[in-house]
Amino acid sequence: MTQTQNAPTERTRLRRKRERGHFDRDTINGILDAMPLAHVGYVINETPVVMPTLQWREGGHVYWHASAGGRGIKAAEGTDVCLTVSLLDGLVLARSGFHHSANYRSVMIFGRPERVSDPEQKRARFDGLIDTLFPGRSADLRPPTNVEVRQTTVLSLPISEVSAKIRDAGPVDDEADYALPIWAGTIPIRTVAGAPIADERNLPDVELPAHVRDFDIG
Amino acid sequence: MTQTQNAPTERTRLRRKRERGHFDRDTINGILDAMPLAHVGYVINETPVVMPTLQWREGGHVYWHASAGGRGIKAAEGTDVCLTVSLLDGLVLARSGFHHSANYRSVMIFGRPERVSDPEQKRARFDGLIDTLFPGRSADLRPPTNVEVRQTTVLSLPISEVSAKIRDAGPVDDEADYALPIWAGTIPIRTVAGAPIADERNLPDVELPAHVRDFDIG
Repeated sequence: MTQTQNAPTERTRLRRKRERGHFDRDTINGILDAMPLAHVGYVINETPVVMPTLQWREGGHVYWHASAGGRGIKAAEGTDVCLTVSLLDGLVLARSGFHHSANYRSVMIFGRPERVSDPEQKRARFDGLIDTLFPGRSADLRPPTNVEVRQTTVLSLPISEVSAKIRDAGPVDDEADYALPIWAGTIPIRTVAGAPIADERNLPDVELPAHVRDFDIG
Repeated sequence: MTQTQNAPTERTRLRRKRERGHFDRDTINGILDAMPLAHVGYVINETPVVMPTLQWREGGHVYWHASAGGRGIKAAEGTDVCLTVSLLDGLVLARSGFHHSANYRSVMIFGRPERVSDPEQKRARFDGLIDTLFPGRSADLRPPTNVEVRQTTVLSLPISEVSAKIRDAGPVDDEADYALPIWAGTIPIRTVAGAPIADERNLPDVELPAHVRDFDIG
């Protein structure tokens, strides 16, 4: 490794070079917006810990939240994290094991997260989480109490030290192997939303809102 | 944090306690087998790096592989990693923002990966990768060359320091909030395989194999 700590620009440059990634902001935003599930890497006592977390994007930042006493949140304060969002889009079957591959979209964001401290800002971010997933829903909900706001920590990371990687292609085999009688191709994989399941305790006259009916993922 | 490095048993105990997880081996294996996409956390120059990677399980170990010169593989040698496999199974909409949640299955495996060095063992693991995803396929393929075996590093991790977390339930609201006229419920999310796409250069008499037709994920 030639990269050095505390040199994000150099780190980013090396990552770009190695990973032959895609870096336009629309591509990166598109991946973040397609998949709320993120994996956040913390270093806790010199050991990496990778936790699944819901992320949401507002403008040029990603956010995630957790119980204020949570392990990851504590570890994230004042230290670097890596937040990765990936979608598996397909398995690629080649004529040799070596050329089997996967299609995917992935974004890695590096940085030192900041805690959203101001209570009004926190409330705005809670609404942002809801409305990013379900446009307009936050206005319909029972608002957060002060205790709920205190119990929850919101972290933010600028989408600046970032890289994306995408593979979207069929198998690429050694030329000689195309003569072999082997089925090659791609099995597409998708993340899909199923039919909404209403809570049994919904009031009888409550209708399915558009933000649930139109929900999309992947 | 009261946990200490180099005390995996203590670490595991604390994790279990905090995470109220599920630890029977069948549950853990079921999650690993349902989703080949893993996120592996390395520490590179004191910074966490979370890389998407395909994992496969054979018996009591998980395996992953990468180009022998790859950044993650280099970082993994002789240091702890965390390999996390997660499936997002649903988004849970409650009557307050605070009680919104996600359904998911997740496994975290901690440990110091070992490199599979013996060439015959490596070949067996390559077959294992293919056959875990597509039972019986490895026997049909052009076998790996010695160069391909050398170019690829296979890492293994015992499924021993491990925890699983599962949420699978509808919304749980504050009692008073059930009186509110708000739609609450669950949007199921699934990972699904689509219809296989044959490579254009398949020979005309090659048929779709059962291991592709019957492929399942999620």
